[in-house]
Amino acid sequence: MKDDPRRRQPDAYPDRLRLETRFGDMDVNGHLNNVAFARLFEETRVRFLRFGPGAPPPDKTRSHVVVAHVAIDYLAEGDYPAPVTVTLAISRIGSSSFTVAMAAFQDGADGPHCIALCDSILVHREPGAAPSPIPPAMRERLEALRLRG
Amino acid sequence: MKDDPRRRQPDAYPDRLRLETRFGDMDVNGHLNNVAFARLFEETRVRFLRFGPGAPPPDKTRSHVVVAHVAIDYLAEGDYPAPVTVTLAISRIGSSSFTVAMAAFQDGADGPHCIALCDSILVHREPGAAPSPIPPAMRERLEALRLRG
Amino acid sequence: MKDDPRRRQPDAYPDRLRLETRFGDMDVNGHLNNVAFARLFEETRVRFLRFGPGAPPPDKTRSHVVVAHVAIDYLAEGDYPAPVTVTLAISRIGSSSFTVAMAAFQDGADGPHCIALCDSILVHREPGAAPSPIPPAMRERLEALRLRG
Amino acid sequence: MKDDPRRRQPDAYPDRLRLETRFGDMDVNGHLNNVAFARLFEETRVRFLRFGPGAPPPDKTRSHVVVAHVAIDYLAEGDYPAPVTVTLAISRIGSSSFTVAMAAFQDGADGPHCIALCDSILVHREPGAAPSPIPPAMRERLEALRLRG
Repeated sequence: MKDDPRRRQPDAYPDRLRLETRFGDMDVNGHLNNVAFARLFEETRVRFLRFGPGAPPPDKTRSHVVVAHVAIDYLAEGDYPAPVTVTLAISRIGSSSFTVAMAAFQDGADGPHCIALCDSILVHREPGAAPSPIPPAMRERLEALRLRG
Repeated sequence: MKDDPRRRQPDAYPDRLRLETRFGDMDVNGHLNNVAFARLFEETRVRFLRFGPGAPPPDKTRSHVVVAHVAIDYLAEGDYPAPVTVTLAISRIGSSSFTVAMAAFQDGADGPHCIALCDSILVHREPGAAPSPIPPAMRERLEALRLRG
Repeated sequence: MKDDPRRRQPDAYPDRLRLETRFGDMDVNGHLNNVAFARLFEETRVRFLRFGPGAPPPDKTRSHVVVAHVAIDYLAEGDYPAPVTVTLAISRIGSSSFTVAMAAFQDGADGPHCIALCDSILVHREPGAAPSPIPPAMRERLEALRLRG
Repeated sequence: MKDDPRRRQPDAYPDRLRLETRFGDMDVNGHLNNVAFARLFEETRVRFLRFGPGAPPPDKTRSHVVVAHVAIDYLAEGDYPAPVTVTLAISRIGSSSFTVAMAAFQDGADGPHCIALCDSILVHREPGAAPSPIPPAMRERLEALRLRG
């Protein structure tokens, strides 16, 4: 992730979410903890999958995707109580899985600076069943969120 | 706390903070977890003590108060992803300690409804030392935040 | 709680549990965070209610009690990576609610020292219903766990 | 990670740690949450780096490594209250960074089964400074923990 300069550009991502940080997100080092980053990326992913463009059709009450892989590059220390802006795009769409690319930004003296990158591989499947092809309507929504540039 | 009807009135509290809830604040019951409430009350208390009316004078870099006691009344289930509004007032000022009264609200069909109450006893002390009298300037700020009604 | 010396005596409690602490339980102060104490007391309470003496009869799959109130006295700083021993007793049994008294200990130079006390009020009720009387079998189990001394 | 069968063999890892799970590690799905896995891997990594074979020499009070990258493969659902055994090995040693390979196991009907894999890239550096070569004594300790097989 970190070797692709596009990933550190907020404009490369069609979707974004501003999240508060919490005192409890800091660890003994006085900066946002590594696991707290995972929590913020989870929050963005969940809101995207439950209420945003990745949400299932209205007749389905539960998301049909499971998280198979999460990778995070830690680029800089994060601060509290500043909020974090997490940007989101789809970087890959396979037959039954897709990759969500995210980046976390905080404001610095020179504008937003990227403090972490995250790739999540999500697998579509019927409840309790094996991976199944991404339905056409879902694929269409994902295509509209492709990473740009 | 819960037997004082004033404590469930948002207008009884001079200060307030709107906080996001997180997916991770829910437990297996599908509602905001009891400990997550403690986390939200902590966040409100920390922001009050570090950056708000309870903050130390500018020449002091660290808060001079420690938490001696926290009590929470759980009144109703809390929901995700709705935000929580936490209201804050000072309900008691002693010689070296004071009590922060908080209430958590979420919007319901009939307006905000109170889902939890919290009392925190904070003790003022010099770093590494015994409890010490609340300084006059701090006392004045706390007096201005008295619980109303 | 803190004014009752009996509450700081490990032997006053019939039940106990040793729990690991985690790096993530510390906050910026380098000690166990206040909310982490709430998490450790929750863990003890849950294990007691689900798998221990407070568990429902085997034909019931879910606990029939809800947490109405939690109060914690913070007595001393807690350390990582030392484990915490949480002791548990029943300090009050009403018609439809009871109070769980807990204390958290860590080893010191002079033996175990008490770092926090916790009272939790649990209300028995049928699922989705109003408070209901504590069943005789449950009352009997709770009576056997009375705080001693 | 997940395509290397060796990574799912407990015996491939020279070091291991048994960790308790907590009620709060579960999310609404009733299984160990993805971020809770990150927390358990962090705990293993921290204990390894602070108190275990990866610890700095006794004259250094702080670890000299920072986490640059964490990747987790989620292979199966994790359960509470069963403990998790996390195994640890060194899978790569570069000039100033190394990779810690971990796997999480829970007991199943047929013995331990692997529920998640984790790779963490750690960078050695002098405090506040740029990456610096891994010292010979540290390199020697890391070499002794190579992934086997």
